[in-house]
Amino acid sequence: MSKFTNNDLKKSIKNSLNLDTKEENRLDESYVVQDKQFNLSTELLSEANKNNHIELYNKYVKNFNRISAELDTVDRKSASSNFSNYRSLKIDETYNLNGVYLHELYFANISDLQSQISMDSISYMRLARDFGSFDAWQDDFIACCLSNQCGWAVTYYNTYLKSYVNCFIDLHSINVPFGTYPVIVMDTWQHAYYRDYLKDVKTYTYGMMKQLNWNIIEKRFNKAEKIATALRG
Amino acid sequence: MSKFTNNDLKKSIKNSLNLDTKEENRLDESYVVQDKQFNLSTELLSEANKNNHIELYNKYVKNFNRISAELDTVDRKSASSNFSNYRSLKIDETYNLNGVYLHELYFANISDLQSQISMDSISYMRLARDFGSFDAWQDDFIACCLSNQCGWAVTYYNTYLKSYVNCFIDLHSINVPFGTYPVIVMDTWQHAYYRDYLKDVKTYTYGMMKQLNWNIIEKRFNKAEKIATALRG
Amino acid sequence: MSKFTNNDLKKSIKNSLNLDTKEENRLDESYVVQDKQFNLSTELLSEANKNNHIELYNKYVKNFNRISAELDTVDRKSASSNFSNYRSLKIDETYNLNGVYLHELYFANISDLQSQISMDSISYMRLARDFGSFDAWQDDFIACCLSNQCGWAVTYYNTYLKSYVNCFIDLHSINVPFGTYPVIVMDTWQHAYYRDYLKDVKTYTYGMMKQLNWNIIEKRFNKAEKIATALRG
Amino acid sequence: MSKFTNNDLKKSIKNSLNLDTKEENRLDESYVVQDKQFNLSTELLSEANKNNHIELYNKYVKNFNRISAELDTVDRKSASSNFSNYRSLKIDETYNLNGVYLHELYFANISDLQSQISMDSISYMRLARDFGSFDAWQDDFIACCLSNQCGWAVTYYNTYLKSYVNCFIDLHSINVPFGTYPVIVMDTWQHAYYRDYLKDVKTYTYGMMKQLNWNIIEKRFNKAEKIATALRG
Repeated sequence: MSKFTNNDLKKSIKNSLNLDTKEENRLDESYVVQDKQFNLSTELLSEANKNNHIELYNKYVKNFNRISAELDTVDRKSASSNFSNYRSLKIDETYNLNGVYLHELYFANISDLQSQISMDSISYMRLARDFGSFDAWQDDFIACCLSNQCGWAVTYYNTYLKSYVNCFIDLHSINVPFGTYPVIVMDTWQHAYYRDYLKDVKTYTYGMMKQLNWNIIEKRFNKAEKIATALRG
Repeated sequence: MSKFTNNDLKKSIKNSLNLDTKEENRLDESYVVQDKQFNLSTELLSEANKNNHIELYNKYVKNFNRISAELDTVDRKSASSNFSNYRSLKIDETYNLNGVYLHELYFANISDLQSQISMDSISYMRLARDFGSFDAWQDDFIACCLSNQCGWAVTYYNTYLKSYVNCFIDLHSINVPFGTYPVIVMDTWQHAYYRDYLKDVKTYTYGMMKQLNWNIIEKRFNKAEKIATALRG
Repeated sequence: MSKFTNNDLKKSIKNSLNLDTKEENRLDESYVVQDKQFNLSTELLSEANKNNHIELYNKYVKNFNRISAELDTVDRKSASSNFSNYRSLKIDETYNLNGVYLHELYFANISDLQSQISMDSISYMRLARDFGSFDAWQDDFIACCLSNQCGWAVTYYNTYLKSYVNCFIDLHSINVPFGTYPVIVMDTWQHAYYRDYLKDVKTYTYGMMKQLNWNIIEKRFNKAEKIATALRG
Repeated sequence: MSKFTNNDLKKSIKNSLNLDTKEENRLDESYVVQDKQFNLSTELLSEANKNNHIELYNKYVKNFNRISAELDTVDRKSASSNFSNYRSLKIDETYNLNGVYLHELYFANISDLQSQISMDSISYMRLARDFGSFDAWQDDFIACCLSNQCGWAVTYYNTYLKSYVNCFIDLHSINVPFGTYPVIVMDTWQHAYYRDYLKDVKTYTYGMMKQLNWNIIEKRFNKAEKIATALRG
């Protein structure tokens, strides 16, 4: 994922796109992302659904890498709000970047058949603190799952409010707060549940909530707490 | 800004909205934000423009506090993607929250008549590292200023890419990346420059770039670096 | 569908919502829409998918009627761009209205097992005229089917350009042209094909294109031509 | 505005973009739009504002013509929802097309210093019929002016509801109904009023409403009525 260790991958992407890699003074801000592997043993989703979903994710990675490479050399002088290659590429960069990031967070925090949350975990205590109770967090998170129009529900640490907050996103980049570190992610695009549940997003959501991987989530809360400390300092 | 020190303000907002503050088992996640003061001495913006802009910001604060209070008691059981009070309130929460946050970051990082960036600052070194050069960052940031349709240009630390990235936002919450800590913010809504520059957003942007407050920005980079460290740990 | 013949239905909706129907001087602009019946015999979609899709459509009708009724009495004095019941209701009105309208057009123009287009039909001649050839229209329409992010592809008569144009819509109300009379509609939300095709929107689209009901479409073109004549007059 | 009379302009646009005009089998759907002239004598807007606004409009025309020309030859085989030139161009086509169309309707229906509506005009009677009263239409239209986030308020004939309806649009293409013939248009982008009114959109709107050109609007209602007749037939 680092832009420093992946120079070869980046160069090969640029070559495949016939993008000039030699030009002096060009920007060099492209980020190369590598596909991660996920092992989804949950029986709540069909194998067809799971395989399809992973392929969707792979496509976002591929798109993002290509956009990132093209952005290195796109003309910035003609950038404009109504019509320009720069604008179009940046919109697609954000869209596919969120597509990659949120999918990775989602795959990693679902499908835990031994799902269990301990009342003395940071996860539990922070959700209880910032939502009044763990159950109140859960009710609110589920409401976010049911309220987006093809999108996401996310619990995240808000760097402005200094608090954990739930939000939903439409598609990948509409209604998104700024200043965010995500800790719990649920995919509620129709592609996540239609094969197995048709429009019954409620049954999908309730089932998935029972298999949240609180070990993974606890690690994210630990990082979020370090961020909270850094921001107070 | 903390939800713990502002209980009285919160209670008074709820009372003014006739929202029930006694009901048991209700959510208690409302965040109360207090207006900040900004001293904008720049001659690049007229006094009329500056006063108007601060009043706009005050309105976002007021709206956010009211929405936040209403969200405590809104019905979550009827939450739905096509039509529900919960969905509408959450959309407005994100919109006004970004409106508050980005305006505060903007006001604080502009209008420095002694604007100067040191080549051994963290700001300079990180921008040079992640964009190839400081000038390359600047070209890209300006392109973001020119490419949004009433919105924002932001340099932020991306918690997924582990890198500083530029993005633009349309309005307050469209085309927004997830996993973000903002360090440099430029308001390019038409309300920021039309009074003084009409459609000449370029002259506005170039002028404002010369008065960026790099002292304030350096403090944000220092926090962002702590976040980077926290995420590596 | 007329607001004049459906006064009883409208009154009963308002009663069920406990909305005041007696207040003088209130607006009276609510539109009541009645569900239509569709007979989808196509074998390209599973029965489960078809039943689910009709239920989705029924939900849009129900939502639209309820929103329409609430709009009669919502406070207009407090209307604002950042946060107001009026704004939220109007957004949902447009969203659900498009949801109803486009679904009806879609159901009516698919699933013709004897699909056939005659070269001397108005449909054929106008598409050939405005896209260069019938095949060129088809290539462009398919490109629209593949390019939206959960949404629609539509061929419509553009009242400004005086020409038939293809567009795609994201969700129900994003990227929508103004001045439009729709003649051909394809649903490419993921809910339309995921049960049966997963992410293979291409196979879904190609199949559905072969079962377009050109008799229904021809009637729409006839109306569009009358509109074209009216606008020239 | 017709694509048939403007072949020379179209060819010259394509030549200036170095787009291939000879390739066989290419699409030929580009629409060429010519700038219209508007004479805005209103004293409610400053000369600087008016000149600036006309230049904005000219830019939309120029962009639309260029996009339209590029769409003739863009690759449709690689069209995709996440990242493709086709998708980006079509989004910008709709955005700039609406920008052109709505601005022309706006300029033509404002700035009438002898503004007057007759109670036996079609405009008056239809607004009274479909909104309960003329005043009710006005209250609702003003609410639309105040509720968009940089955008438009429009009264239009809805081809599905068979009725005149008010809507607002965010930017140029968000929250837009389908099946629309516009009759009254108000620009409430910040660029329309910030120079002269800063954030006081209310004073701008009230003033502009008193100078609506009901003669122009009546001609549009006459066309809308012909459309209504055509659709009943």
